[in-house]
Amino acid sequence: MTDSHTLPPRQLFAGHLVDIEHRRIFDAEITVSGDTITDIRPTDPLPHDAPYLLPGFTDAHIHIESSMMTPCNFARVAVRHGVVNAVCDPHEITNVLGVKGIDFMIDNARHSRFNFYFGLPSCVPSSSLETAGAAIDAAQTRELIRRDDLHFLAEMMNYPGVLFNDSEVMGKIAAAREAGKPVDGHAPGVMGEELQRYAAAGISTDHECSTPEEARQRIACGMKVIVREGSAARNFDALCPIIGESPHEVMLCSDDKHPDDLLRGHIDALVRRGVERGIGVWEMLQAACTTPQQHYRLPSSLLRKGDRATFIAVDNLRDLNITTTVIDGCVVYTREQGVIEQALTPGTPSTECPNHFEARPITEADLSTPLTDGRVKVIVAFDGELYTRCEELPVERLTSPEIQKIMVYNRYGNGRPQVGFIKGFHLSHGAIGATIAHDSHNIVAIGASDSDMVAMVNALIAARGGVGVTSEGRAEVLPLPIAGLMSQESAEEIARRYGRLDALAKQLGCTMQSPFITMAFMALPVIPELKITDKGLVDVLKFDFTELVSR
Amino acid sequence: MTDSHTLPPRQLFAGHLVDIEHRRIFDAEITVSGDTITDIRPTDPLPHDAPYLLPGFTDAHIHIESSMMTPCNFARVAVRHGVVNAVCDPHEITNVLGVKGIDFMIDNARHSRFNFYFGLPSCVPSSSLETAGAAIDAAQTRELIRRDDLHFLAEMMNYPGVLFNDSEVMGKIAAAREAGKPVDGHAPGVMGEELQRYAAAGISTDHECSTPEEARQRIACGMKVIVREGSAARNFDALCPIIGESPHEVMLCSDDKHPDDLLRGHIDALVRRGVERGIGVWEMLQAACTTPQQHYRLPSSLLRKGDRATFIAVDNLRDLNITTTVIDGCVVYTREQGVIEQALTPGTPSTECPNHFEARPITEADLSTPLTDGRVKVIVAFDGELYTRCEELPVERLTSPEIQKIMVYNRYGNGRPQVGFIKGFHLSHGAIGATIAHDSHNIVAIGASDSDMVAMVNALIAARGGVGVTSEGRAEVLPLPIAGLMSQESAEEIARRYGRLDALAKQLGCTMQSPFITMAFMALPVIPELKITDKGLVDVLKFDFTELVSR
Repeated sequence: MTDSHTLPPRQLFAGHLVDIEHRRIFDAEITVSGDTITDIRPTDPLPHDAPYLLPGFTDAHIHIESSMMTPCNFARVAVRHGVVNAVCDPHEITNVLGVKGIDFMIDNARHSRFNFYFGLPSCVPSSSLETAGAAIDAAQTRELIRRDDLHFLAEMMNYPGVLFNDSEVMGKIAAAREAGKPVDGHAPGVMGEELQRYAAAGISTDHECSTPEEARQRIACGMKVIVREGSAARNFDALCPIIGESPHEVMLCSDDKHPDDLLRGHIDALVRRGVERGIGVWEMLQAACTTPQQHYRLPSSLLRKGDRATFIAVDNLRDLNITTTVIDGCVVYTREQGVIEQALTPGTPSTECPNHFEARPITEADLSTPLTDGRVKVIVAFDGELYTRCEELPVERLTSPEIQKIMVYNRYGNGRPQVGFIKGFHLSHGAIGATIAHDSHNIVAIGASDSDMVAMVNALIAARGGVGVTSEGRAEVLPLPIAGLMSQESAEEIARRYGRLDALAKQLGCTMQSPFITMAFMALPVIPELKITDKGLVDVLKFDFTELVSR
Repeated sequence: MTDSHTLPPRQLFAGHLVDIEHRRIFDAEITVSGDTITDIRPTDPLPHDAPYLLPGFTDAHIHIESSMMTPCNFARVAVRHGVVNAVCDPHEITNVLGVKGIDFMIDNARHSRFNFYFGLPSCVPSSSLETAGAAIDAAQTRELIRRDDLHFLAEMMNYPGVLFNDSEVMGKIAAAREAGKPVDGHAPGVMGEELQRYAAAGISTDHECSTPEEARQRIACGMKVIVREGSAARNFDALCPIIGESPHEVMLCSDDKHPDDLLRGHIDALVRRGVERGIGVWEMLQAACTTPQQHYRLPSSLLRKGDRATFIAVDNLRDLNITTTVIDGCVVYTREQGVIEQALTPGTPSTECPNHFEARPITEADLSTPLTDGRVKVIVAFDGELYTRCEELPVERLTSPEIQKIMVYNRYGNGRPQVGFIKGFHLSHGAIGATIAHDSHNIVAIGASDSDMVAMVNALIAARGGVGVTSEGRAEVLPLPIAGLMSQESAEEIARRYGRLDALAKQLGCTMQSPFITMAFMALPVIPELKITDKGLVDVLKFDFTELVSR
């Protein structure tokens, strides 16, 4: 998405042209006039070390917010990996800021030549068991989905609502369908007859599959499967065979991806990995380039005459090292020069940091839990998993070194922290905290001492959002002043500071591989079994609040 | 090929099994009893970093002699690259030693567990325009082709003989067909109706194609195409698309490959390169593993129950790093341990060096060319090409620094060196020489001074064969005491010494990229235009001798 800027008048690009549709490669010279491919001419054989030209990659489902970067900064990393399109669901910032969050993302993205395709979040808030910063109902959805800059209805995660024919949910879906815009799904584990009904409601994708059988059932129902490989959920290896079987029904996505991971690789890394696992490169390119363009009806950029002049050059189809990225006729990256800043980001995005942060500092008294007897429900967290188990322990066992306090505190208004107990993080001292806590992004903290938890929470409040670690009363915070989710800093800077916090958390004794990611899901009351929100402890299986102490 | 040795009783190998026939990969445990796969059992999912098990690679056409190594030493390099079978034509040594040369190769190969499949050379000698060390006629062919250790009739390069129905040529082909053994071809540039007649004669392969059109015509005639990538002729890049189109009709070979090249990569490198160029990995594996086993009816080693336990393990199908090579149930190579010598070479091959070398030392008088007037025919050689052009120059121009003397000297008996002039090597001083000179392997030398040429030739005679460089009267020779073609040394040692000679030749001013390879073809009178043999200067287009001086 970009404003009109002066484009070079006419350019020629020569190479081995990769025609995914016909599965052929031919030597050609491409004429680009403005932002369009105006001619493709076969040439005499080029040297074998000439570049291979192919359509750029599409990330078919991503919450840019999880990168902690602005869209403009995200693009600066993506183009190095040959990614030129991102199908974006601004679900996180919208749960904090409502439509103002969507508009911030779109406005920032407008200053980058990278192609962002935003959808309208369908689940704001995600549930009634927590306090979000905004709400969008079916009536507003009907208005908003008509906007030209919102291309689909995003991630309908309320699948019970679909199956039980909830009028709000069905109203949102109907609005999207009437506007002629696709509806994205999210239905982990839904199978058989229920899945058929979910698909029949008009939901055409799912990126939550984790087994080949789930994926095959979705494809049989006419849905497309978006194979996800993010920083938290990683389904690529398990779903690899599906890409080989049905490349026209499969896309690739990262969903949630941290800056350090993004710097290492993006969709390009998945194409390579597929080939490692025996999937044909044509099938991988179909899923990485063609299927998402067609499914989301993106402006055609498939290296045909008349297409947008958006493509990449690679050294060869095995190593897939990106040598050039071209978007809308502009070279935005070359291996030699790196990102070409004035081409990729011709505008000057605002440095404004919209936020929604009302919480007031807390004291140790706010965290006190005067328990005397009974059995206490403890959240048991597991490394690399989003689900938890509930374990009931006698009060006297809470002083065990394997149990810490967890706290969630409404950041949008008045209220008091909700306090529970958690096992699995193994903090021996200090505390960790963040304002990234799916999906309402209240303040979450886990700590070995009340004083460190208080210092942590108050430091996050002072920064108006962030991620942090506190040890012996001293807090270190990576500030995320945009909605408490994102920073104006570059990927490298965020990765550096985030990496430092990760190391500090491990110095506290934390044994989780990704402590902040796992913590961020402890407040999400839609994944079983025991979670905690700003409103209280939630028994997810009953979809209701529960008492901390069993009487 | 191997004598019976004690085999381990029963072994299990687990990995992602690559089933090329059905284009699927499944996790399995392979039971090997003795040299046979006795069971294949699907397992629970293995970790993604488990090895991929696939059939080993086959080099479908090679003259081992060009590696300058014995078969046993060749195998020590091949197995590192996952090559387990080689379809061998002992054409070079047979032109020197006759059947004794074939027997030497087979006897040496018998001491290695590597699978060598030898054919009977069809063209000994290659032509009547030079003196070879031996001759095998149709009657002898009829006897020899019945031998159990000769599996096919090799490389029928006398394609004019086939097209003109030469009785000797047709007799050899008929003998092979009656013995039920395939006949390999060699028909560069033969097209259309002539090609149909060549194929109809019963010739079923060609490894001399250099264009896709040649390859497609051969496949249309029912022949198989062996895509060649050797040290001299390199056709892989041009023929790549054919592998994608017709993997069941295509095999891969190296034909002639030097030790330094072999150390860098073999058939494994071609599979990688194919994937780089957009050919599917399944098509590459079909050509590298399956098609040659089927065409040459090799003992089946395709990872099926009942097959020979000959297979390889690789890290993944993109990087294709060979982690283990198993031949007939024995682990002969692992990435950690390298070649497992007692498993790969259980026998002790003879250190005998059979040879055929009668030439006596020469003097400067033997090279004198008392030319006074007229125009002299000069051989014009080109870097990387086997053909030459003829240029006629006035006698006085022969002293130009761009022209050197070339000499070919019969090594099999009495005779005198034949002397000509050559352009393209640019030696400013010294001489280079070798007893590798296709196809009769007489002594060839090129020099800037007669004294250096004499020193070169006499040093090669003293060594009873080799490759060498002489500068200021001092000769350095890599001795090749086996038939003047091969050494008992290892690949590394030959590569080191050959590399040194190559550098020395360049210090003499030689501008050819591979001086010895190009020189070796200056004596081959079947590739146009002007060549020189031990019998004299040859006008290849007239297939007859010609005078040095035009009168």
